Amino acid sequence: MPNDELSGRGVRIAIVPDSFKGSLSALEVATAMARGVQQASRAGDLDIRLSPLADGGEGTLDALLDAWGERARTVRTTDALGRPATARFGLSPSGTGVIEAAEANGLPQVSDTELLPLTACSRGVGTIAATLIEQGATEIILCIGGSATTDGGIGLLSALGARFLDADGEPLPPGGGALASLERIDLGGLDPRARAVTWRVACDVTNPLVGPHGAAAIFGPQKGATADDVAVLDAGLARLADVVARETGQDLRDRPGMGAAGGIALTLQAFLGAELVAGSALVAQTLGLREILDGVDLVLTGEGRFDEQSLHGKVVDAVAAHAPAGVPVVVIAGEVMVSPEDMWAHGVTTALAAARGPRTLADLTRTTADDITYSAAVITRLLGL
Amino acid sequence: MPNDELSGRGVRIAIVPDSFKGSLSALEVATAMARGVQQASRAGDLDIRLSPLADGGEGTLDALLDAWGERARTVRTTDALGRPATARFGLSPSGTGVIEAAEANGLPQVSDTELLPLTACSRGVGTIAATLIEQGATEIILCIGGSATTDGGIGLLSALGARFLDADGEPLPPGGGALASLERIDLGGLDPRARAVTWRVACDVTNPLVGPHGAAAIFGPQKGATADDVAVLDAGLARLADVVARETGQDLRDRPGMGAAGGIALTLQAFLGAELVAGSALVAQTLGLREILDGVDLVLTGEGRFDEQSLHGKVVDAVAAHAPAGVPVVVIAGEVMVSPEDMWAHGVTTALAAARGPRTLADLTRTTADDITYSAAVITRLLGL
Repeated sequence: MPNDELSGRGVRIAIVPDSFKGSLSALEVATAMARGVQQASRAGDLDIRLSPLADGGEGTLDALLDAWGERARTVRTTDALGRPATARFGLSPSGTGVIEAAEANGLPQVSDTELLPLTACSRGVGTIAATLIEQGATEIILCIGGSATTDGGIGLLSALGARFLDADGEPLPPGGGALASLERIDLGGLDPRARAVTWRVACDVTNPLVGPHGAAAIFGPQKGATADDVAVLDAGLARLADVVARETGQDLRDRPGMGAAGGIALTLQAFLGAELVAGSALVAQTLGLREILDGVDLVLTGEGRFDEQSLHGKVVDAVAAHAPAGVPVVVIAGEVMVSPEDMWAHGVTTALAAARGPRTLADLTRTTADDITYSAAVITRLLGL
Repeated sequence: MPNDELSGRGVRIAIVPDSFKGSLSALEVATAMARGVQQASRAGDLDIRLSPLADGGEGTLDALLDAWGERARTVRTTDALGRPATARFGLSPSGTGVIEAAEANGLPQVSDTELLPLTACSRGVGTIAATLIEQGATEIILCIGGSATTDGGIGLLSALGARFLDADGEPLPPGGGALASLERIDLGGLDPRARAVTWRVACDVTNPLVGPHGAAAIFGPQKGATADDVAVLDAGLARLADVVARETGQDLRDRPGMGAAGGIALTLQAFLGAELVAGSALVAQTLGLREILDGVDLVLTGEGRFDEQSLHGKVVDAVAAHAPAGVPVVVIAGEVMVSPEDMWAHGVTTALAAARGPRTLADLTRTTADDITYSAAVITRLLGL
């Protein structure tokens, strides 16, 4: 057992979980773990480093806000169908903004009505970004999952002042269905502050923009696109890529990730220099995960369901990748679906399910926080920390 | 982390679980744990000390047989109602015999018919003991739980040659209902080898022989006794205690444990010098638990349900009591019902439920062995053993 008290320094434990989706936020999980560590540790000098994490998907905004100790801001914007909507976003004291795009162009927001895949538009996301820029953001993290749009990001860019014009010099109507008529892009009105911002897009898919694995073919149907709509949207995105290539000298259509969220990253990358980053890595980088894990004796992480996906681009993967060699990385989860060999190969030392006996999912949900506290306590005590 | 390879000796892990009742025998649990340890350990020289344990109740015979590497022996005997029955028992190479009394006087054996609390008789247990003596036992461990009898052990002693006589010098008929007529005990025919044997009775209750907390009042009803029967049995046991006191000079009726199993220990203690011992302690002593745990780096134990009772006279309690100071004692259980504070106060470092997610009891039963293996593996790896 390590006994760091004897060696003259305190015990340092990093608590860096994801949320338990449908049950507890990442902050609630982290708080439950911290309670267990405090209950169990016999260290005279205990340094708990608590940082809720996220993978760039739903919950990322809240995780970053919690880690920053900031409250959400809100803005009046529009949803994917152009209807008024209120969106939450975040801004850190150091000027990093975070947007969950789905707050403005998401499927949940339009679940009350018929999906309109050809006209659904990302303009509302641009309105949030414009607000962040107005409020002083110098960096914007854009989480793009869950979108209802396939417009290649032209709505977003339009909200920042760009104009996407047809052969008659008229602005295109909203949505990917009009992209086939694109002739020219006018950046004269683009807010120069939008170009000065560092844009980072949290993206966990590798689909290209167009073709059988592209935005329209793969994600169009879940946004309501028929086979005919898919063909229209795919042709529209291809046209957008053509015009962008002509105007910038760069053809981005085959880059991995360009097919995410209806091609939203295409125009962001082409005109605003946005960088695509895996969501969990982006969050880890934003929160300084490497510094948090530096010199710790134990890393506690967790998520609702620890499965093979967790080891590929999710929070646990990022944590294991950033943990110092030789330090135990313990996953506390609602369910553990990974074999020991697989977790060990990915740098996870141990994974425990939080349940303390036979429980239905409904039972378990009621006691998850206590079960997490319990697990953190017995692990801390087992390691003599 | 300990790294015993560096210090030049191997890693030693003791695996000493109880059974998971209704699911896995203690040997099956131990084997599942050993598999996990072997999967996870990176020690070049791994010394696994595997000993299934038991608490003196059901499963004790199998646990001892498994620990000894012996098969069960069988004998034709009688059940509590005097009907022919086949009973299993065990004999170690060093001459320790083990009897689960319920094999011959148990409630399960007579569950097919009306209970007869006044005539139910422990003679069949004596037949097993006589067989053990015949086969060379020098020590007999008698596990007395689950009995259907309230005869103060006179059936058992009768099978070994003692005679319990009424005023006319006639042997009493079977059962506690006749004890009120007891006048004299004739030990002339008692097998001298039965006296030479070391008798140890595994007993986990502290009830006295008679009175409101005695054998008849507390345990009579579950053996079918009406209120009138209880009065008859209580008076009979009191008469037996009187006669025993007169003939031996010792009144045992108030000793703790004399009320167990229908007073079976009374005559065993009075005439054969039997010692009453807590079941788990008796098993621990018989198997040399202290030696097994000496010098180990980790103790793995477990049981189906780890609750407050587990910490009072059960296997986990015995294991924690025998573990060397500073060595982690880890309980792997089907269900954990003990708070961290309580387990720590009793020397248990950590307890984990084996389930790897939300599961019904039925689901869990199917995967328990694999879940135990998994838990043992991740604990071993976490401790760097």
